[in-house]
Amino acid sequence: MSDALTLGQQYGCFGGTVGFYSHFSETCLCEMTFSVFIPPQAQAGPVPVLYYLSGLTCTAENFTAKAGAQRYAAEHGLILVAPDTSPRGEDVPDEDAWDFGSGAGFYVDATEAPWAKNYRMYSYVTAELPALIQANFPADGNRQGIFGHSMGGHGALVCGLRHPEQYRSISAFAPIAAPMQCPWGTKALSKYLGSDLQLWKEYDASELVKHYADRDRPVLIDQGAADPFLAQKQLLPEVFQIACQEAGQPVSLRMQPEYDHSYYFIATFMADHIRHHAQYLCR
Amino acid sequence: MSDALTLGQQYGCFGGTVGFYSHFSETCLCEMTFSVFIPPQAQAGPVPVLYYLSGLTCTAENFTAKAGAQRYAAEHGLILVAPDTSPRGEDVPDEDAWDFGSGAGFYVDATEAPWAKNYRMYSYVTAELPALIQANFPADGNRQGIFGHSMGGHGALVCGLRHPEQYRSISAFAPIAAPMQCPWGTKALSKYLGSDLQLWKEYDASELVKHYADRDRPVLIDQGAADPFLAQKQLLPEVFQIACQEAGQPVSLRMQPEYDHSYYFIATFMADHIRHHAQYLCR
Repeated sequence: MSDALTLGQQYGCFGGTVGFYSHFSETCLCEMTFSVFIPPQAQAGPVPVLYYLSGLTCTAENFTAKAGAQRYAAEHGLILVAPDTSPRGEDVPDEDAWDFGSGAGFYVDATEAPWAKNYRMYSYVTAELPALIQANFPADGNRQGIFGHSMGGHGALVCGLRHPEQYRSISAFAPIAAPMQCPWGTKALSKYLGSDLQLWKEYDASELVKHYADRDRPVLIDQGAADPFLAQKQLLPEVFQIACQEAGQPVSLRMQPEYDHSYYFIATFMADHIRHHAQYLCR
Repeated sequence: MSDALTLGQQYGCFGGTVGFYSHFSETCLCEMTFSVFIPPQAQAGPVPVLYYLSGLTCTAENFTAKAGAQRYAAEHGLILVAPDTSPRGEDVPDEDAWDFGSGAGFYVDATEAPWAKNYRMYSYVTAELPALIQANFPADGNRQGIFGHSMGGHGALVCGLRHPEQYRSISAFAPIAAPMQCPWGTKALSKYLGSDLQLWKEYDASELVKHYADRDRPVLIDQGAADPFLAQKQLLPEVFQIACQEAGQPVSLRMQPEYDHSYYFIATFMADHIRHHAQYLCR
């Protein structure tokens, strides 16, 4: 492990290890944290890596402790990496809001003051973090996938669609699938990116899919039908589904009755998502 | 559901539901909370119930969110019930300590002032709570098991051994297995129960097994070999193992290298524990 990385807590887990790491990010210009699950198969050589992006208010810990993903990653032999959801720290600008600023980076590279200096989660997730993982863990950089939840589902769709060469597989739980059309998205995009709608489109999956459809890389989405944010039209998976159909992007949008937006929902369908990624990453 | 029970949050989970409930406890004389997982099989009629007792500082939520138990309970058709670890509230005496008072009821019926009025977790767990579950959920009262972690592993061993007619199966993760011989245990027992060592023995699994050995009910224990509390001699599973051998109580004490005291350890071996209970509860 390079000097750049500091290991915090580490735990034995399903025959492998869960570790929480911190490092100074050259992209976000602050200390960043993430968790890594190393499966037992990695003792024999490099294995694929699956990145998970979390939702509003989360840190690296929510997914790591609550999603039950390690069991399946250990079965399939996948490294799991879960970054934080925003830059943080005394020198990082913030607002007194749960849907903007700390814990709400929206996986964009901000262009507006005062956010532009630190809020560069898009570059962090797609460039700095994978390079760090590649350099420090037994990771096969040619086999990477990405998934996430809510704001992180949005992040996974955006990063995945824009980098077909980098991510072989994409899935999402209850993603913010059309951020230009929902209150959370328009608030975040206007404050991070200003008023240029062309720039917003670079971070809206339902816009991006028009240009990045990939017939060989089907997207899996699970959405709880009892999710209150679905009713509030924050998620809009149907907008993304229609955009996919028009663009020729295969998508399986599964509406799950009785399920909400919580990690109990995510844990329930985690096995299916990891199997989806393993299909593309482990062959 | 009776008027006595208030449903807080409820979540869809592995085809069933997780609910958090509160009620006024006639035993502890305060508001108590617990979680219940109802598996899909319960729609067809009563199913067995498995009680989980949590460790120091925990509430009903730690196990429910982090242990990944619902998946296995849904496979085997078991209700899971997880109570809080102590009485709580403005009118409940407490101390500024993490190993005594709130979050640290030690599953005893206290006899000493000021604890005796509310700290009656033994009676709560073995009598009031099962009656409440039986009255309000599709629970088969003739098929109950009990398990737990750390202080709750101690509780599970004590409750299970003392009530062979009530609990058909017992297991524990890293239990405080000989509380009369460890710092946590002697602190709690002396403050809750006073100086009568005969009374302490009613809450020490390594003492109880001398009188309650049951050849037909093997006990499963998993213990992380890298658990810092094992090294600190707070847990003493080897004392319990020797007492079991001398008394004729079958016990499988599995030392797990590389594992610590965390929920990552618990989640890793949860499948084995639920399978252990299902052997006795689902036949």
